[in-house]
Amino acid sequence: MSEKKWVYLFHEIEQAIDYVGGNWDDARGLLGGKGANLADMTRIGVPVPPGFTATTEACNAYQPKKEFPEGLWEQMLAAMKDVEKETGKVFGGVDNPLLVSCRSGAKFSMPGMMDTVLNIGLNDDTAQAMIKLTGNERFVYDSYRRLIQMFGSVVLDITDEAFEHVFDGYKEKNAIKADTDLSTEDLKYLTEQFKIVVRKEKGFDFPQDAYQQLKLATEAVFKSWMGKRAVDYRRATDIPDDLGTAVNICTMVFGNMGWDSGTGVAFTRNPATGESKLYGDYLLNAQGEDVVAGIRNTDPIQKMGETMPAVYQQFLDIVAKLEKHYKDMQDVEFTIERGRLWMLQTRNGKRTARAAVKVAVDMVEEGLIDKKTAVSRVTSDNVDTLLHPQFDAVTKKVAMDAGRFFCSGVNASPGAAVGQIYFDADTTERMAKEEHQETIMVRPFTKPDDVHGMLAAQGILTSEGGATSHAAVVARQFGVPCIVGASSVKIDLDRRVMTSGDIVVKEGEWISVDGTTGEVFLGKVDKHAPSLDEQTELLKLLDWADEICATPGIRKGDTPGFPTVGLQVWANADYPKDAIRAREYGAKGIGLCRTEHMFFEPERLPSVQRMILAKTSEDRVDALNDLLPSQRSDFEGLFEAMDGLPVIIRLIDPPLHEFLPAAEELRDQIITKRVAQMADYILGKGESKEIVELEKLLAAVESMHESNPMMGMRGVRLSIMMPEIVEMQVRAIMEAAANNANRGLHPKPEVMIPLTGHINELKVIQPRLEAIAKEVMEAKKVHFEYKFGTMIEIPRAAVTAAEIAGDAEFFSFGTNDLTQMTFGYSRDDAERSFLLKYVEDGILPKNPFQTIDRDGVGGLMKMAVENGRATRPSLEVGICGEHGGDPNSIEFCHMIGQNYVSCSPFRVPVARLAAAHAALKYAPK
Amino acid sequence: MSEKKWVYLFHEIEQAIDYVGGNWDDARGLLGGKGANLADMTRIGVPVPPGFTATTEACNAYQPKKEFPEGLWEQMLAAMKDVEKETGKVFGGVDNPLLVSCRSGAKFSMPGMMDTVLNIGLNDDTAQAMIKLTGNERFVYDSYRRLIQMFGSVVLDITDEAFEHVFDGYKEKNAIKADTDLSTEDLKYLTEQFKIVVRKEKGFDFPQDAYQQLKLATEAVFKSWMGKRAVDYRRATDIPDDLGTAVNICTMVFGNMGWDSGTGVAFTRNPATGESKLYGDYLLNAQGEDVVAGIRNTDPIQKMGETMPAVYQQFLDIVAKLEKHYKDMQDVEFTIERGRLWMLQTRNGKRTARAAVKVAVDMVEEGLIDKKTAVSRVTSDNVDTLLHPQFDAVTKKVAMDAGRFFCSGVNASPGAAVGQIYFDADTTERMAKEEHQETIMVRPFTKPDDVHGMLAAQGILTSEGGATSHAAVVARQFGVPCIVGASSVKIDLDRRVMTSGDIVVKEGEWISVDGTTGEVFLGKVDKHAPSLDEQTELLKLLDWADEICATPGIRKGDTPGFPTVGLQVWANADYPKDAIRAREYGAKGIGLCRTEHMFFEPERLPSVQRMILAKTSEDRVDALNDLLPSQRSDFEGLFEAMDGLPVIIRLIDPPLHEFLPAAEELRDQIITKRVAQMADYILGKGESKEIVELEKLLAAVESMHESNPMMGMRGVRLSIMMPEIVEMQVRAIMEAAANNANRGLHPKPEVMIPLTGHINELKVIQPRLEAIAKEVMEAKKVHFEYKFGTMIEIPRAAVTAAEIAGDAEFFSFGTNDLTQMTFGYSRDDAERSFLLKYVEDGILPKNPFQTIDRDGVGGLMKMAVENGRATRPSLEVGICGEHGGDPNSIEFCHMIGQNYVSCSPFRVPVARLAAAHAALKYAPK
Repeated sequence: MSEKKWVYLFHEIEQAIDYVGGNWDDARGLLGGKGANLADMTRIGVPVPPGFTATTEACNAYQPKKEFPEGLWEQMLAAMKDVEKETGKVFGGVDNPLLVSCRSGAKFSMPGMMDTVLNIGLNDDTAQAMIKLTGNERFVYDSYRRLIQMFGSVVLDITDEAFEHVFDGYKEKNAIKADTDLSTEDLKYLTEQFKIVVRKEKGFDFPQDAYQQLKLATEAVFKSWMGKRAVDYRRATDIPDDLGTAVNICTMVFGNMGWDSGTGVAFTRNPATGESKLYGDYLLNAQGEDVVAGIRNTDPIQKMGETMPAVYQQFLDIVAKLEKHYKDMQDVEFTIERGRLWMLQTRNGKRTARAAVKVAVDMVEEGLIDKKTAVSRVTSDNVDTLLHPQFDAVTKKVAMDAGRFFCSGVNASPGAAVGQIYFDADTTERMAKEEHQETIMVRPFTKPDDVHGMLAAQGILTSEGGATSHAAVVARQFGVPCIVGASSVKIDLDRRVMTSGDIVVKEGEWISVDGTTGEVFLGKVDKHAPSLDEQTELLKLLDWADEICATPGIRKGDTPGFPTVGLQVWANADYPKDAIRAREYGAKGIGLCRTEHMFFEPERLPSVQRMILAKTSEDRVDALNDLLPSQRSDFEGLFEAMDGLPVIIRLIDPPLHEFLPAAEELRDQIITKRVAQMADYILGKGESKEIVELEKLLAAVESMHESNPMMGMRGVRLSIMMPEIVEMQVRAIMEAAANNANRGLHPKPEVMIPLTGHINELKVIQPRLEAIAKEVMEAKKVHFEYKFGTMIEIPRAAVTAAEIAGDAEFFSFGTNDLTQMTFGYSRDDAERSFLLKYVEDGILPKNPFQTIDRDGVGGLMKMAVENGRATRPSLEVGICGEHGGDPNSIEFCHMIGQNYVSCSPFRVPVARLAAAHAALKYAPK
Repeated sequence: MSEKKWVYLFHEIEQAIDYVGGNWDDARGLLGGKGANLADMTRIGVPVPPGFTATTEACNAYQPKKEFPEGLWEQMLAAMKDVEKETGKVFGGVDNPLLVSCRSGAKFSMPGMMDTVLNIGLNDDTAQAMIKLTGNERFVYDSYRRLIQMFGSVVLDITDEAFEHVFDGYKEKNAIKADTDLSTEDLKYLTEQFKIVVRKEKGFDFPQDAYQQLKLATEAVFKSWMGKRAVDYRRATDIPDDLGTAVNICTMVFGNMGWDSGTGVAFTRNPATGESKLYGDYLLNAQGEDVVAGIRNTDPIQKMGETMPAVYQQFLDIVAKLEKHYKDMQDVEFTIERGRLWMLQTRNGKRTARAAVKVAVDMVEEGLIDKKTAVSRVTSDNVDTLLHPQFDAVTKKVAMDAGRFFCSGVNASPGAAVGQIYFDADTTERMAKEEHQETIMVRPFTKPDDVHGMLAAQGILTSEGGATSHAAVVARQFGVPCIVGASSVKIDLDRRVMTSGDIVVKEGEWISVDGTTGEVFLGKVDKHAPSLDEQTELLKLLDWADEICATPGIRKGDTPGFPTVGLQVWANADYPKDAIRAREYGAKGIGLCRTEHMFFEPERLPSVQRMILAKTSEDRVDALNDLLPSQRSDFEGLFEAMDGLPVIIRLIDPPLHEFLPAAEELRDQIITKRVAQMADYILGKGESKEIVELEKLLAAVESMHESNPMMGMRGVRLSIMMPEIVEMQVRAIMEAAANNANRGLHPKPEVMIPLTGHINELKVIQPRLEAIAKEVMEAKKVHFEYKFGTMIEIPRAAVTAAEIAGDAEFFSFGTNDLTQMTFGYSRDDAERSFLLKYVEDGILPKNPFQTIDRDGVGGLMKMAVENGRATRPSLEVGICGEHGGDPNSIEFCHMIGQNYVSCSPFRVPVARLAAAHAALKYAPK
């Protein structure tokens, strides 16, 4: 026939595919996602209630005049005849009436459009027929009154309130609380009342003619495509208007037509554990909502094998077929109508992280999917979840219901922690080490010299700071659950209590900190802590992820030096023990070792302070020589742990005053000691030398004060003003490498200069340091490879990367600082004041300290990689900022051609997976 | 002849030009700058002592084997014959000996090379002949011993010490103090001794053969081209090695051959005033050094008209010809040998700023040069000098010699100031206003609430801060001479004294501050203060500069929107009086009106503080409504002053805590009051309410504390969190414009949003403000044009300029902050700690806060202009940072296609000239 085909029966999928030129995706465009899927199941022989789809083209043709295009209605009538024939029912018939649902279905799921009208075809006569068939008058009237209301509101445009008013008034008058308490008579009465509402509102009766119902419902779907909400949504998401929506007309089937009928839901595998065993429930003589509502006890799906073995076997065959067809665990709904099984829906089943990994790996081993598919199916969040101790959802709900919720803050480092609270680092550490308590350290905010307490604690809670505050960064680095910026909490360090609202918690009391969600509970909440070693499936999956990334050709840029393999994942680690863990977690190198953390060790701090306060270069070198052996031994351990792999060591970065006590603290000490001295004076004792020393120290601290320390005297600036420190550090690095090499190991040191903004900074400092490297190798009579490179964390460095790559052999993006300076946001200040509001209000799509801002910061990074490689194609490019563990940011690092990302050891598995995801997403077709 | 021509006589310039293909610049390459100039004078008929030049090609040909190329020596001999013929003297002859000088001369003047050997040809015999001719035995022996030493050291490579040892030993032994005390006999003796030095050091005698002297001297020049110092210099300045140097051999002439001989120097116009009148001195029977040494009193050049009228007339004709030939004021040296006038040198004369302007303008009016040439000849520094009161060089030297130098610091704002010192703003203002004193405000550093003192002072001195500190910026803005960062100065605010080293200056004592050089003197140093109105020549020149910039086609980019005219100059002005001055100085608009300065006015501050401390939006609006009338009236004045010209008003920018007292200050007050209260308590008085209020204020101030305020809650961030303030400001702006428009004026307001980093910030705030503009116009029934735009001062804004230009109608670069964030330098901190060292050590070529860093910050600016105009070709682009008044930065602004630069009113004339210079430099050929 030469007439345009507007309507496809579910079993006409091949015709639809032919029509669009053979492409399944285009068939989805024509039939909509829902219609195409119903037709697809029909095609593979799964029993789907018969039905048909009016195409998206029909929708588009309808729009100009708001009229059915020529032939559409006739084709729908013909299709309905076909459905009647197939079902043996008659639409509008009074013996075995055919009822249908009408659903919209665009190519993409889209809110704001008319969704569903069920039970079309029900009227006063067919209702009687249905009562006979089901023997369930209450169900029929409930369905009928629902049809009138649904039809009235979505098709006839009557306000919901008009119906609710009648409904609620009736319930109130008759003191009926729940809908389930309504009797058959009540529903019968309400059905009549709803008819009156329609008449009153529209001036005509609720259409008793089934075909009129069908036509009006179809039109309503078409109209809703151009409705305001749908249009707004499309504008916001860039979906074109001419996509159109299809309309799906599908036979209603009923599981409540007797004890040979039933309904159920099932997963083809266990969605909690991933175990490959059918998992579901069913109920005989019931409709779908009965299973969900939990009014009657359901039976496990396996019991069907006893009650209706043939149907069960058919069901098993179908779900096996579906899983094979869709190559994923399926979540199915089915109904048995008088012994006949109908599949109402199949979709990929939601699952826990554990199940996601197990299902993916199992399916590879079953030959169902390949490794790439398995890797794509597991999300980074899945892996993250598996790596951190978690609270049990159930016990957390119990705690919540019991009023044990205390406060919430920024979820800075995921995982669950339970412990007794302490308000300072020393007490926290003492209680943990000496008293073997589980502790939570609670502070307004943390500083570098609080780290020992943070490491000793199970979890950390601060009332100030944002997601990249000191507490947050350190916590993530060490995998300690942490909540920061819990602003409702007032901490009284004198009285040793914290309060939030009316709740007061004293030092030593128990709390539970959920770093994953940012919630704090009073008392103990149960948690479970999985370990990586035991997760053999996860380890397998991560190896596959690495394989994908290591595949030559998986990435291809057209510029010299652009990598042909995917990203490697390296780790940030300051100590040998972190490096060991990083390697266990699959890190292929150390992307950042922060040497200054070594300076904070209690036995080294005095030498560090002596070095800082030195008046002459000689005194400074003297103090530094005291530090050299311990730095060297740190590095020996680090190189040994990462033997054969690159280790990037960053030279001292923070401003020196961070190694000295805070001015406030010193002032307080001086006042206290002065008062004591006065007492001593009265008692005839002498002057205190201590005060003089403290005052000297205070003067030194004050002279180092900066109005904006973030942009001050640190990094390479410090090295240029005071080269002795980095000279000692490079000597320690090179001597450590030489010692290891002489022991037959293969150290690969890379020296990283922080905060470079101008090529001349490298030109001044790098040759001095390279000379030390050569000198050490000569003295130790050994040769090993090393590199000198720089962080790119100052916008100017990114802009002038072409020059900087002339001297730097590698770039490592310090995206924390780069984000601060590119945005002009001081991160702690900003997260405390305007930044979170910016994110809430959508001024910023994401917190740029958590996910790289691709347009701004990312624009600079892209420029830096391109221009850097233009000068030096062999340039090694990585990232060592917090973003190195964020999947969205990792994808961006892949796109711009970085060689690796480096993140906290605990994030390495997540990053490995994210790197593979990026590689797959952007692999050449 | 087919032999290569290595040697050109001075009168062979045409041949040289032919040889290089007709280009004068290439002829300078062949003959060197000095040789070409001597030849050029010869060509135009000016009497130059005869001579010749061995070419740079000869130098290059010499280098490989360190041998004269074939034919060179023979050509030099032939040239010498020619010179002998022309002079009637004989080289090495004993009757009328020809003496010559030998000078190197590359294309560019270049230190590190052999300069000059004079009196070549002098030996024992010719010396006797010279004595006969000059009758001045002392002069001849002095010349002879100088020749031996000069020849010995530069040609024969004997150390200077070898001669100095003999010379100083002789003087010591004979108790002779000055060289001028040496008698003829002494010099005769020393000549012999110097010959002995040569013999001892070299093993041969000082060459008596004139030709041998000539050849060795020529070779020495060639060799010095490849000497270490010359090579190093070329490496550093990128001058290629194969340029080579020429060697110039020129007849010596003597002004001391009797009373018909003489010597002198002259300027063709007065180099101090520019007056068009010959200006110079001469001496009869004397050599050049006698004029300079000042042993004999010289006569004014005009006296020559009486003593030797014919020569004088010839001289007048020659200098007139030279000025006409070189089209600039000439500085000439001449010698008269036995009645014959020889010109030894002419060059463009150095001149004062005043003379530079007058000469340039006069020459245009004389038809000698065109306006473009006149504009190019005057430097920005010239104009700068003319605009600021200056200390007299002489009196300053007197002060220096008298030990009245006190200290030095960063020359932050030019000009001279003399006044009595006061250590706080209130006292400074009071002394200035009530006691009518001239005051200098001295502070460790300044803050916004010190501005009233700064404005009342003649000058400002701070011991802290850098060239862009608050003090420096405000001082430049208001043209107040200022020195900052005078780090040797200790200010004791309690004892009211400042000290530097041992010198103590008490409050009320006089000092003199030279903001141009950064020097401070004790007591009063004389100054003179020129005014623009009286400088009619300067005004004329600046009008020509504007004409050049306004010429269509003077600038041409190939992108849409790139301007075809040069830069306009606008001014930064906060008050109507500044705007009036700016317009007088030639500003074509206001590029930055900082509204917050209006908030600091004493009578407004209480309302501002009430607004900040408001707990509700209503209270805030209430306080703001108090401010509205005064803001509106400020703007009315501003628009009136700039009627018909654009006025860019920046919405509130600084963090709010700047409007509140500092926390330290409040804490001190509280402690003081507590002590007082304790006393009151003892005396039975009640509690102080004041302390409670102060504590509340302190809590508010503390809650606003930021670790890096530079990158904190200010600018548009503040507007988004607290839109009431900018809503009031825009209402005030628009009402002011409407009122003026209703008075028949033509306001052109442009509203500038500061600190934008993300397009969404504009999307949130701009529509709210535009709505107010429309509302005001409707209410006031008037229409005027307005624009909304943004500062580009956050690196991210530059990177994402394409997006931002979608909403912003203009960009104004805030290069102070942009520089801070692009470099990651907090300016005050950096200038105090590492930045100045960076500049000193050449790590940074210039202080980026004074001159735009073209590669880094400039790279972002260029990107922003290009991408912004790609979105909106009509985008108006300017700069309002400190750099807007810096000539080098102005040139860059021109290059990247900005429409205007905006600077302090006092810098407007400098900027106008700089803009014209840029336009001329980059005009299409």
